[in-house]
Amino acid sequence: MLNFDFYNPTHILFGKGRIADLNKVVPLDAKVLILYGGGSIKKNGVFDEVKLALGERQVSEFGGIEPNPTYETLLATIELVNTNKIDFLLAVGGGSVIDSTKFVAAAALFEGGEPWAILEKRGNNISKALPFGTILTLPATGSEMNSGAVVTRRSINAKMSFNSRHCFPQFSILDPSKTFTLPIRQIGNGAVDAFIHVIEQYLTYPVNSPVQDRFAEGILKTLIEEGPKALVNPEDYDVRANLMWCATMALNGVISTGVPQDWATHMIGHELTALHGLDHAQTLAIILPSMLRIRKDAKREKLLQYAERVWDLRDGNDDIRIDAAIKHTQNFFEQMGVKTHLSDYALNAECIPAILSALEAHRMVSLGERRDVTMDISRQVLELSL
Amino acid sequence: MLNFDFYNPTHILFGKGRIADLNKVVPLDAKVLILYGGGSIKKNGVFDEVKLALGERQVSEFGGIEPNPTYETLLATIELVNTNKIDFLLAVGGGSVIDSTKFVAAAALFEGGEPWAILEKRGNNISKALPFGTILTLPATGSEMNSGAVVTRRSINAKMSFNSRHCFPQFSILDPSKTFTLPIRQIGNGAVDAFIHVIEQYLTYPVNSPVQDRFAEGILKTLIEEGPKALVNPEDYDVRANLMWCATMALNGVISTGVPQDWATHMIGHELTALHGLDHAQTLAIILPSMLRIRKDAKREKLLQYAERVWDLRDGNDDIRIDAAIKHTQNFFEQMGVKTHLSDYALNAECIPAILSALEAHRMVSLGERRDVTMDISRQVLELSL
Repeated sequence: MLNFDFYNPTHILFGKGRIADLNKVVPLDAKVLILYGGGSIKKNGVFDEVKLALGERQVSEFGGIEPNPTYETLLATIELVNTNKIDFLLAVGGGSVIDSTKFVAAAALFEGGEPWAILEKRGNNISKALPFGTILTLPATGSEMNSGAVVTRRSINAKMSFNSRHCFPQFSILDPSKTFTLPIRQIGNGAVDAFIHVIEQYLTYPVNSPVQDRFAEGILKTLIEEGPKALVNPEDYDVRANLMWCATMALNGVISTGVPQDWATHMIGHELTALHGLDHAQTLAIILPSMLRIRKDAKREKLLQYAERVWDLRDGNDDIRIDAAIKHTQNFFEQMGVKTHLSDYALNAECIPAILSALEAHRMVSLGERRDVTMDISRQVLELSL
Repeated sequence: MLNFDFYNPTHILFGKGRIADLNKVVPLDAKVLILYGGGSIKKNGVFDEVKLALGERQVSEFGGIEPNPTYETLLATIELVNTNKIDFLLAVGGGSVIDSTKFVAAAALFEGGEPWAILEKRGNNISKALPFGTILTLPATGSEMNSGAVVTRRSINAKMSFNSRHCFPQFSILDPSKTFTLPIRQIGNGAVDAFIHVIEQYLTYPVNSPVQDRFAEGILKTLIEEGPKALVNPEDYDVRANLMWCATMALNGVISTGVPQDWATHMIGHELTALHGLDHAQTLAIILPSMLRIRKDAKREKLLQYAERVWDLRDGNDDIRIDAAIKHTQNFFEQMGVKTHLSDYALNAECIPAILSALEAHRMVSLGERRDVTMDISRQVLELSL
């Protein structure tokens, strides 16, 4: 096992009816800004429930945060926060809204010049942030219980991430029943996103970490069981609860303790979203199967463990079992409604040079758990993903 | 899945050489009191390492904290803390030292009269506590990453627990190599203690919580694999690391999210320690197998799952598989060097009435996940444990 630090102070309030507990966890004298996305929370009653729970507190709102939130939009939010002397942010939405809130929380108090510097330094220059909480309506990214975020700068087609100890939500409210009305596409994306978060921390090389491995396998098996049920029975509370808790546990630091991490699929995927606007989960579903095929030797031992423990594959030689496990993985993404080839999104080989140039521009030239995913390997992965 | 809250702000620093990082996590101007137990840390170099890492900070010490720490001892510690205006406590040891430190941290600032009131109210009357950190030298109780503690009042033979949000360690340093010199008996006890912590949160009744179940099973299987290796290869770093992380994960709140909890075995075990001085793990190893046998019907579904997933038992009818799983559990405790009958500790049926009276005196008359472990069932369990 590798040495590690684990720190995660976010208070999770999970279950039916928990939005009412906002009253206990938001300071009574707070000047609250509610951040949200496309406005579904105004139609499904969540916004009203939040306002009711906040009672007499002074509340303003900022809506319209887009999927893959842009730096350009968030600059306007930061201005609003500072002008109105907001002292508590409340994200109501999915990963995009929560990531935005983290950025705004840090940028509002940032003293290092233009806030883009936060992304350039990956958050290492954050020394404080406004307190914030979240109400999760879309299980997927795990942002509700970690300190990382991703922001896109449209003007330069850059999708960049940052992380800071100061950017943990103080609390996150997870009510699975608030996900009943989500579009099927978002449920499919969410399950695939959570699945690949686990894979990035699990399918690397063995370091003798049996507990972490079994936790990772436990989340993967649960996503495989519960994901398809969530598509056909949108109001099955337990299914949605299990999906939601899987997505949170997939990226709250528990399963990454003491193990190597990959994230090459994510880095290539971010460029695909920045350049072509694909959903985050779509990019991962395209890249991961090819990444595993190309890097089969580097990941051989863990792939064999994955084949046996997650997919119960015990017949045939090593290569047959590994190939079958990757095929099963790809089929699961398709079953969840997420297509797995570039061509499914009207992209062909012509898009590859620009993606590689973007990776180079963002210094993503040696990726993966051993930093040996060179530009040439990224190119092979993209070619195999056509 | 049941509604739940999860909150755990303890910063874990795990791995070889991490004691040096004390310098980063203890405030520079702190007046530190080091609390420890029987003095092994003075022989094995840990104390010197801690002092070195604390550098120029003002440091005093309080040693001699006993296993199953007593209220009587801790009153003296509290006086020392207040007299010397200590503002940071540092526990160096196992669960007893850490539990003591939690009690002292809360009692030093307690304004509700005699500190025993903290135990009487189970911690609900704690409104603040001194900050403290821990250096774990004995993996077992999980106290290094939770907010609970157990204290014994010798004068009335009472072993009582409390819990408070204010009693999380600020940090805990877990260096597995510091466990190499532990006596075999403590390693055996620790593995059994962690195992039964998991069982108390897992072997109840199903609530459709597949992730939590798989995490629990993952810890159990790892303890079964690694525990015996830890006995024969005391300096195998990875084995000790896995054991240590299992014990922490067993009781830091992760596996109890959204599921019922039992703890009847612990409550009866506490009385056995208070009255007869048995090691905590010994009491659990005696009580648990009988508890599972007597409550087989109430726990039937989870026992069947446990038999299949943890012990790979697939042959025979339901009762045969359940009985075999309980027998395997008992054999594992014996394999870890922890005897599982009252008679192994020179106790016979004559001890039972006093244990039952103590349970009654401590209002432990309806225990378990459904509060249906009556005094009569506790009596049956004890009789079956002879």
